[in-house]
Amino acid sequence: MSGSTSTNPSVFLYGPGNAKIQDRPEPQITDPADAIVRIKFVGVCGSDVHFWTHGGINNKNVSAEHPLIMGHEASGTIHAVGPSVTHLRPGDSVAIEPGVPCRTCTRCKEGLYNLCPSMKFAACPPDTHGTLTKYFKLSADLCYKLPPGVSLQEGVLAEPLAVAAHAVRMIDVRPAKTGCVVVFGAGTIGLLCAAVARQFGAKTVVAVDLLPHKLEFARGFCGARTYVPDLGMSPEENAKRLIKEHGLGDGADAVIEASGAESSIVTAVHVLRPGGHCVQTGLGKAVVGFPILAMSEKELHMHGAFRYGPGDYQVAMDVLEARSIPVKSLISRIFDFDNTTDAWEATKRGQGIKNMIRGYGYKDPARTHL
Amino acid sequence: MSGSTSTNPSVFLYGPGNAKIQDRPEPQITDPADAIVRIKFVGVCGSDVHFWTHGGINNKNVSAEHPLIMGHEASGTIHAVGPSVTHLRPGDSVAIEPGVPCRTCTRCKEGLYNLCPSMKFAACPPDTHGTLTKYFKLSADLCYKLPPGVSLQEGVLAEPLAVAAHAVRMIDVRPAKTGCVVVFGAGTIGLLCAAVARQFGAKTVVAVDLLPHKLEFARGFCGARTYVPDLGMSPEENAKRLIKEHGLGDGADAVIEASGAESSIVTAVHVLRPGGHCVQTGLGKAVVGFPILAMSEKELHMHGAFRYGPGDYQVAMDVLEARSIPVKSLISRIFDFDNTTDAWEATKRGQGIKNMIRGYGYKDPARTHL
Amino acid sequence: MSGSTSTNPSVFLYGPGNAKIQDRPEPQITDPADAIVRIKFVGVCGSDVHFWTHGGINNKNVSAEHPLIMGHEASGTIHAVGPSVTHLRPGDSVAIEPGVPCRTCTRCKEGLYNLCPSMKFAACPPDTHGTLTKYFKLSADLCYKLPPGVSLQEGVLAEPLAVAAHAVRMIDVRPAKTGCVVVFGAGTIGLLCAAVARQFGAKTVVAVDLLPHKLEFARGFCGARTYVPDLGMSPEENAKRLIKEHGLGDGADAVIEASGAESSIVTAVHVLRPGGHCVQTGLGKAVVGFPILAMSEKELHMHGAFRYGPGDYQVAMDVLEARSIPVKSLISRIFDFDNTTDAWEATKRGQGIKNMIRGYGYKDPARTHL
Amino acid sequence: MSGSTSTNPSVFLYGPGNAKIQDRPEPQITDPADAIVRIKFVGVCGSDVHFWTHGGINNKNVSAEHPLIMGHEASGTIHAVGPSVTHLRPGDSVAIEPGVPCRTCTRCKEGLYNLCPSMKFAACPPDTHGTLTKYFKLSADLCYKLPPGVSLQEGVLAEPLAVAAHAVRMIDVRPAKTGCVVVFGAGTIGLLCAAVARQFGAKTVVAVDLLPHKLEFARGFCGARTYVPDLGMSPEENAKRLIKEHGLGDGADAVIEASGAESSIVTAVHVLRPGGHCVQTGLGKAVVGFPILAMSEKELHMHGAFRYGPGDYQVAMDVLEARSIPVKSLISRIFDFDNTTDAWEATKRGQGIKNMIRGYGYKDPARTHL
Repeated sequence: MSGSTSTNPSVFLYGPGNAKIQDRPEPQITDPADAIVRIKFVGVCGSDVHFWTHGGINNKNVSAEHPLIMGHEASGTIHAVGPSVTHLRPGDSVAIEPGVPCRTCTRCKEGLYNLCPSMKFAACPPDTHGTLTKYFKLSADLCYKLPPGVSLQEGVLAEPLAVAAHAVRMIDVRPAKTGCVVVFGAGTIGLLCAAVARQFGAKTVVAVDLLPHKLEFARGFCGARTYVPDLGMSPEENAKRLIKEHGLGDGADAVIEASGAESSIVTAVHVLRPGGHCVQTGLGKAVVGFPILAMSEKELHMHGAFRYGPGDYQVAMDVLEARSIPVKSLISRIFDFDNTTDAWEATKRGQGIKNMIRGYGYKDPARTHL
Repeated sequence: MSGSTSTNPSVFLYGPGNAKIQDRPEPQITDPADAIVRIKFVGVCGSDVHFWTHGGINNKNVSAEHPLIMGHEASGTIHAVGPSVTHLRPGDSVAIEPGVPCRTCTRCKEGLYNLCPSMKFAACPPDTHGTLTKYFKLSADLCYKLPPGVSLQEGVLAEPLAVAAHAVRMIDVRPAKTGCVVVFGAGTIGLLCAAVARQFGAKTVVAVDLLPHKLEFARGFCGARTYVPDLGMSPEENAKRLIKEHGLGDGADAVIEASGAESSIVTAVHVLRPGGHCVQTGLGKAVVGFPILAMSEKELHMHGAFRYGPGDYQVAMDVLEARSIPVKSLISRIFDFDNTTDAWEATKRGQGIKNMIRGYGYKDPARTHL
Repeated sequence: MSGSTSTNPSVFLYGPGNAKIQDRPEPQITDPADAIVRIKFVGVCGSDVHFWTHGGINNKNVSAEHPLIMGHEASGTIHAVGPSVTHLRPGDSVAIEPGVPCRTCTRCKEGLYNLCPSMKFAACPPDTHGTLTKYFKLSADLCYKLPPGVSLQEGVLAEPLAVAAHAVRMIDVRPAKTGCVVVFGAGTIGLLCAAVARQFGAKTVVAVDLLPHKLEFARGFCGARTYVPDLGMSPEENAKRLIKEHGLGDGADAVIEASGAESSIVTAVHVLRPGGHCVQTGLGKAVVGFPILAMSEKELHMHGAFRYGPGDYQVAMDVLEARSIPVKSLISRIFDFDNTTDAWEATKRGQGIKNMIRGYGYKDPARTHL
Repeated sequence: MSGSTSTNPSVFLYGPGNAKIQDRPEPQITDPADAIVRIKFVGVCGSDVHFWTHGGINNKNVSAEHPLIMGHEASGTIHAVGPSVTHLRPGDSVAIEPGVPCRTCTRCKEGLYNLCPSMKFAACPPDTHGTLTKYFKLSADLCYKLPPGVSLQEGVLAEPLAVAAHAVRMIDVRPAKTGCVVVFGAGTIGLLCAAVARQFGAKTVVAVDLLPHKLEFARGFCGARTYVPDLGMSPEENAKRLIKEHGLGDGADAVIEASGAESSIVTAVHVLRPGGHCVQTGLGKAVVGFPILAMSEKELHMHGAFRYGPGDYQVAMDVLEARSIPVKSLISRIFDFDNTTDAWEATKRGQGIKNMIRGYGYKDPARTHL
């Protein structure tokens, strides 16, 4: 594909292992509140890898007849805005919230737009294209201006930070009230959840993962304590040992389950104190063996967490501005737009924490540094 | 046992199928805030039957060495009160809240005394005796004076009503916000949950049970709509059919799971709309196959409900006073104290909805009517 | 004005006591989610009278240069809908929620659209025209289909019902928790607040007003208890007497202040129990002498209530459908469109509870009955 | 008074300016959950000065017939505990929560024990004696063990920290949601509120005071921004200027009013954004001219805050342990027990921020350092 004549090159997925860069018409401002972003960086997420491997997720699939532009973690610069947009100007660096809700349904109006049944979420089959494109159009209110000193690469992390903020807010972490939070899974989301939980006032955060090097990273990343489950013990036994080792008394105040593993989910239930809250943010098996009697007897509260809603990106932007979490240390390797599938493959192989893809034709100044 | 010389005859359970009426010393006021209740009626609950059959529940067992007085749903008249008690006088008819919390732990102080780890709950092994006794002592603040016109038999129903109130409040039923509540299980608790949900403002309540005659009763009891699951269909298919038949749009706003059956729990998850709440109030299998992916993707909230806490008995008393729920229709058969095990056996055989036992030596005026 | 050639006759206010019916172009569907309503009834509200008398309210004024179409309580039938509207069809009877929020600001997204700084509210200066017009265009999601059997006149009352719902939800009225609610002011809003509070579970509602005949009406309308303040006593003394007369113990659980009178506001503070909530829904003097020390020492919560937000109209529609409040008894007199100023004058003179104006050219079948 | 023969010397206030040190019997453990504390430090609070000057506060007065032991901010070491106390041992350093609630009333049970009508609060007329005594008895659950490294002097600050925690929690300060908090009054409580608000996640805190040197201290204490009201401007104008100077957009998300001054209260209302929350923690005039129309139109929420409730002392202890607030810098001068009235006089003259009094006969090691 020749960049000189193309207008809006985009990475389409046609099915498992089948992606092509193809041109598209450049988007145009049609609503006065629209913004068009020149994409500069797109993060690679586990779901991207799932799409690349399986051609879809949860029965939502792409196909040769309905190929889809991938990508939903993105930053860029404002290319154009509609006449009613006042908080952005061309050239502004922004993080993108990649889902446009209908704004008129009951869920949207009551402040739960992430549950909008008509949500148009980037890279979601059948027909909402993603951010792996040169120019991306969305509602301007979903573009968050990067604070001074925050790089476009860090801006990509606003998306997983918003996921973490959503999870942390779901279990209502607050000083004293939620003194100890246990986080299962020390991948990008788990790490950010642990760090954001501390920002919200958790005195103690215990990160749980099978891989010691991930926990080592977690200790440095956010001062988390750590626990490696003993695979020879039952989830209930692991819960008891975790509680004892970390002096949690009658259990953890809250749990963030970011692994999706059945054994973690069960351990989560047993590690909680009576009245504790658990949020499920990792996705794994559709059905798990769940200790519901323990949930009832301890009067636990289990919450699903789906993407992010009102205020979550604001938390993310505040965190980026305050530099209170060393998000930069999560960024692993930056791939060129043309090598998007290499980025997916590297992530699939478990290489790095957060890999990113440069926007089409973008020569980032930081290129040589990574 | 000769009543003429006994002071405080009580029904002790020694193990599965092994109960004896034995005398005990009459309790004495030791704390100025104590009350002693002359027990008049004790309700039979599913957990009593479980004790009678298995000698315990959830690893909490009675034994020949540690027999325990059974009973926790009770009403009676005030026999004596301590000097600091001002809201009660001897002779007052009361319903009893049968758990005395420590009042000083974190849970007690934050308003969740039902989660108090030092709770002394009636008929709970190893050593907290129950209400199947002539005189029962507890803190006076846990005795609720029956409103004028409310009978002692109805007073027994304050306990299951409080269980229902606790469940309904957990899912925050309110006019318009929680328009449709689905209740699984049409036993005493399920029926009361359905009725209390309507009191809290649910526009539509759908009762679900396999037994059509129970649903017939539910329709009359609280105007519930009904659904009989098709055992030839999967829980997900039943959920879809229930939603369609009752026009619930994207699903029920809330679910009360009062059956404890695995298929109901799974159906509950699938019947909820995005953002919906489910409370688990029935106890069944310790571990169930749980559709956690559906919980996550719909951002559902699952709550355990354990007994009752602050305000729940007040809801119960208000309901009894308002006569807004025909609780009397739940009362099936009254057994004499000496025939306590007959009451358990009848309940075990599924005879009646709420069977009761007369307090020791009590000749109730309504005797001939039931 | 000749109806035969006019397209969209509307009642413009030019200043105090200066209104004219003038024609306007018929609105056109421009957004696919628009709806155009043929207005059938418009209610007269206290604020309309304030506009009619003073030419504006709270420094928001009409003028000869910027006349404004009045009216914001309205019902009608769907005249046309945009192509994306699925829940309405031409001919449907609807109640109108007369404020269109921006839907993209922080307040809108977090579920508080009534606080949207860009709200376009009917009949609000300088330039948002009201519903006293033949055809009124708004977003279709703000049109609520009237339930079967609910008349267009009753539909007008959805607006004040939504005001009441908003106030009642602000103080979180629930069974047992908010057993006693005191409502100051027994005008339309006060009456509806009292009735809606009962729907939400208040066991006791005490209506307070200086006019005994209004309280007499309140007793019949929603079973309220009543209290007539003694003008010879201080607010604190009246509060004490009200508490004593109605056996409120340490005070009312919640107060709805719907009079705007300074003495009522002060009495409200003194009538509340420690930890009680008060919502201010009536507007009166800008500044009042407020017993802030009492608020602090009793740890009270005072809430402003501004119009209505997510879910409030749904409460209103449910109430209308359930026929649980005799709203029809509030409707006093129906004026023809041409006699709009007579309706304002009658209301100004205190004649009737809720006066209404027929939509332009509407010959309602119920005409002869009122 | 001869210390050698006295058992429990205590500072009694007999009326304005009339205090005497008198002996009392040493308290004895009577309840198994009791603790007796050897008092080491007692803080001087504004209310102490008010008692010293006026003989009481809010119509609660001491007298020659009913003298009262003063003091309610205190730390000490455990002298003895009852047999059921497991979390404390003689010799432990503790901070004291000086109010013992009844634990059985509705407020206590629902988690609002600070509103208990039977609260026994230290130094509260007519008959609850305070902590200016050698040995002080209270429920052991109200003794909070000082974390390692936290001094007994710092322990005294747990009390005002708990006041601050209570206020901050009342307005629900959280990251992003409550980005900007304005605090009126830069005395001990105002400073601690500002600092605790930051701990809870406020991005920006603006301290307001008339005295520039207090604001200078606030800047160093917790990184607060500052505003000095212009006495030549109205509260509304000052609010506008504050908003503009600090770029608060449509206003502050929340306000903590810790001055009690009428002009501050009015400014608070005008400085808030629509939907904002204000907590009144300072006490001043009983009645103020209050802009209630502004409260209504912006749908503000005003909260009283009375002392502290469940969890507030835990926040205080966590803050002391984390050393996240430089509380030591608040401690001004330590007076000997015999010079208690000098401490009150110094505080009355505005000398120092937090003056303290040594417990009877206590020779603190840090004596020479201050």
